[in-house]
Amino acid sequence: MTTLLTNALILPCTSDMPVIERGHIHIENDTIKAVATGPAPQIPGANIIDANGDLIMPGMVNPHCHMAMSLFRGLGEDVDDRLYRYILPLERKFVRPEAVRAGTALAALELIESGVTTVADMYYFETEVARVVDKAGIRGVLGQTLADFDPPDHNSFDEGFVLVEQLVAEFSGHDRVIPSIAPHAPYSTGMAVMERVARWADDHPDVPVQMHLAETDAEMDWAAKLGGLRPVEAVEKAGLLRKGLICAHCLYVNDSDMEKMAHAQVCVAHNARSNGKAGRGIAPVEAMRKAGIPVGIATDGPMSGNTLDLFSQFAPVSMFQKLLGHSRKPMPSVEVIRMATIEGAKVLGLDEKIGSLEPGKKADLIRIDLSPARMQPIYDIYSTLVFATMPTDVRDVMVAGQWLMRDREVLSLERKIVLRDALQVASAFKAEMARIDAAG
Amino acid sequence: MTTLLTNALILPCTSDMPVIERGHIHIENDTIKAVATGPAPQIPGANIIDANGDLIMPGMVNPHCHMAMSLFRGLGEDVDDRLYRYILPLERKFVRPEAVRAGTALAALELIESGVTTVADMYYFETEVARVVDKAGIRGVLGQTLADFDPPDHNSFDEGFVLVEQLVAEFSGHDRVIPSIAPHAPYSTGMAVMERVARWADDHPDVPVQMHLAETDAEMDWAAKLGGLRPVEAVEKAGLLRKGLICAHCLYVNDSDMEKMAHAQVCVAHNARSNGKAGRGIAPVEAMRKAGIPVGIATDGPMSGNTLDLFSQFAPVSMFQKLLGHSRKPMPSVEVIRMATIEGAKVLGLDEKIGSLEPGKKADLIRIDLSPARMQPIYDIYSTLVFATMPTDVRDVMVAGQWLMRDREVLSLERKIVLRDALQVASAFKAEMARIDAAG
Repeated sequence: MTTLLTNALILPCTSDMPVIERGHIHIENDTIKAVATGPAPQIPGANIIDANGDLIMPGMVNPHCHMAMSLFRGLGEDVDDRLYRYILPLERKFVRPEAVRAGTALAALELIESGVTTVADMYYFETEVARVVDKAGIRGVLGQTLADFDPPDHNSFDEGFVLVEQLVAEFSGHDRVIPSIAPHAPYSTGMAVMERVARWADDHPDVPVQMHLAETDAEMDWAAKLGGLRPVEAVEKAGLLRKGLICAHCLYVNDSDMEKMAHAQVCVAHNARSNGKAGRGIAPVEAMRKAGIPVGIATDGPMSGNTLDLFSQFAPVSMFQKLLGHSRKPMPSVEVIRMATIEGAKVLGLDEKIGSLEPGKKADLIRIDLSPARMQPIYDIYSTLVFATMPTDVRDVMVAGQWLMRDREVLSLERKIVLRDALQVASAFKAEMARIDAAG
Repeated sequence: MTTLLTNALILPCTSDMPVIERGHIHIENDTIKAVATGPAPQIPGANIIDANGDLIMPGMVNPHCHMAMSLFRGLGEDVDDRLYRYILPLERKFVRPEAVRAGTALAALELIESGVTTVADMYYFETEVARVVDKAGIRGVLGQTLADFDPPDHNSFDEGFVLVEQLVAEFSGHDRVIPSIAPHAPYSTGMAVMERVARWADDHPDVPVQMHLAETDAEMDWAAKLGGLRPVEAVEKAGLLRKGLICAHCLYVNDSDMEKMAHAQVCVAHNARSNGKAGRGIAPVEAMRKAGIPVGIATDGPMSGNTLDLFSQFAPVSMFQKLLGHSRKPMPSVEVIRMATIEGAKVLGLDEKIGSLEPGKKADLIRIDLSPARMQPIYDIYSTLVFATMPTDVRDVMVAGQWLMRDREVLSLERKIVLRDALQVASAFKAEMARIDAAG
């Protein structure tokens, strides 16, 4: 099957971040054959799509999410103890395979509608997440969470490892769905379990490890009690600071931490809106990248940043670094888009396969309408994407050569059913919250 | 003419910020007659519009903008000296009545498309701005700028005051277009001219005064040289710190400044994205409001925050205060929406007329589609508006009982012509920038 996308403004997101003002993309089955300026070649039988001057760029990579938590979006806002008051009780009572499927499908719908084609996820019943992601047609690095706070799907770490093994058994070798192991955070797994995960990872070198790291004040205190360590040092001591580790947040990392992280070749998922909305702080993204650590742009769960699109993150990602540097210069727009595409792919270990539009890579791409008044005129297309484009401007989405959305209609999920199922769970949440509030 | 909007989720934005889950709004000509829960009364000959469960809220108020600068949107991004390198030379060469009309129309199109129904503007050839705003059908508090840096429309302050008088003469008494005087900033007008504006304002008590205040490091230095003053103190000394003064930015205000501002009954236009994108800092919005100063949410010009919708400002407005307070609690979503509506109206001295949906007020309202996956489920409608709604979710816009947009089609401006005219000016800018860059 040959597809030719013609007459497009193309951002290939290769290393020098070029702009092809008017070009074409040649796709054979799931793979890009050519990306070039000028009109497309004549290929008999090709499916030709005229982009009519619209922008085509790589599908975006969201390297840290809790998809099923779309069910909790906007719940308990502005409440400092919402985690213990609402979320953990609701999770324990309602998070079962059916609810996880409903929440994950709602998130997948939103990801596709906003041009995210690859997502990294950490949650419970992750095999269910993987099945929904598979059906939705996107790519995922999907981590079964291990935690000590009585999570809804395992009563012990032994049980948690069984769930990890099930996930790996079912999806090992899958083209789009990559199983992963996700020790929740240093403080919620502990040194012994981090060491156990490290040993398990020795035997599974192709399975990415995901964890929250250096995110909260309480975590700093936890590490300090281990003989004056910092969170990064605790992870290093457990043997887990290693290539393939995807670290979410990293707000509290100093120069020494960054040196260790760069040396160990770990990667970072930066969650600007989540960190800002929690009032936690600003991650030193410019410094981490300068130290040689790849950083991707992530959303965190939908109850932390509320949306799962990367467009909503772009202005905060840029502004936060400019505020830290007290200057317009830090984090230029072109770097933000690099992080959202090829650098995000590198964070997930997928940069040989996706993240840029070039021959040999998988055909994961999105088409964006640039005509709204709010985006015109355009002097710098990267600035337009970072500061003026909305997720609703994404018209078409392709993953591995398959269209998942055309003209804003998602083809791989049934929108009505997805919304119905999610709202059913939300009703149960509302009733339980009323009960909790009545109990005082 | 009677209009009945039925079957709506209504946020009236009156003082206790209620939520009417299912209600109706009764409009006679340009005025709201009733806002109530339940089905609408039977009124013969009424134009009945079923909102089908969509949200209806007051049209939003953007209290600081430079509309015509839409022509500069995204130009010279990430360049610290862009003002002197590009913007001032381009303004001097190209900013003429025709360009101001083109840029203002592009901005008006975007404002309507994103649900902003009232805007405060400061620019040059402001009478031209006023004519375009009048035609577009929105409301404006439109300030002729006075400045000492060789602006494109006046060579002396005497000439500047002539332009102010022309604006006032043409629009005095207009229902929607309110003429205003806009001394650019303390450092760019100087003490003598601020004193002259204060005397002029004594004779024109109904004309709002707008200025940039306490925005930049250089401004702090300027004020310090006047015998150790702070910017707010300089304005006070000039007699300009008075009821009716709309102060944009106010990044550098301490407790003493805030006390003076509250006592003088000045109001503030907060420009979160503009301040963040310039790396300048975070305005102490919570502290100003606690001191009793009304604060509205503004965009600044389209080259400072890039978009003119308030939705793009909401998350930064909230996150910035949460970051300052290192907690989730500051600036809850309901307060953000209050600032975008009734408090913004108060900033412009228009809170008797607009800013909330209640009997006797002008019928300025917007309808928002809540169905996208990214907004569901909804536990707190104010959180949904602040963190998950996009300007593209605004379907209909009414000002003074007239529809300016229906189902996303703007009725008061010709989209094609507006875009054509703006892009023509942008081409001239691009050619001149190439010349500047070639000259080194």
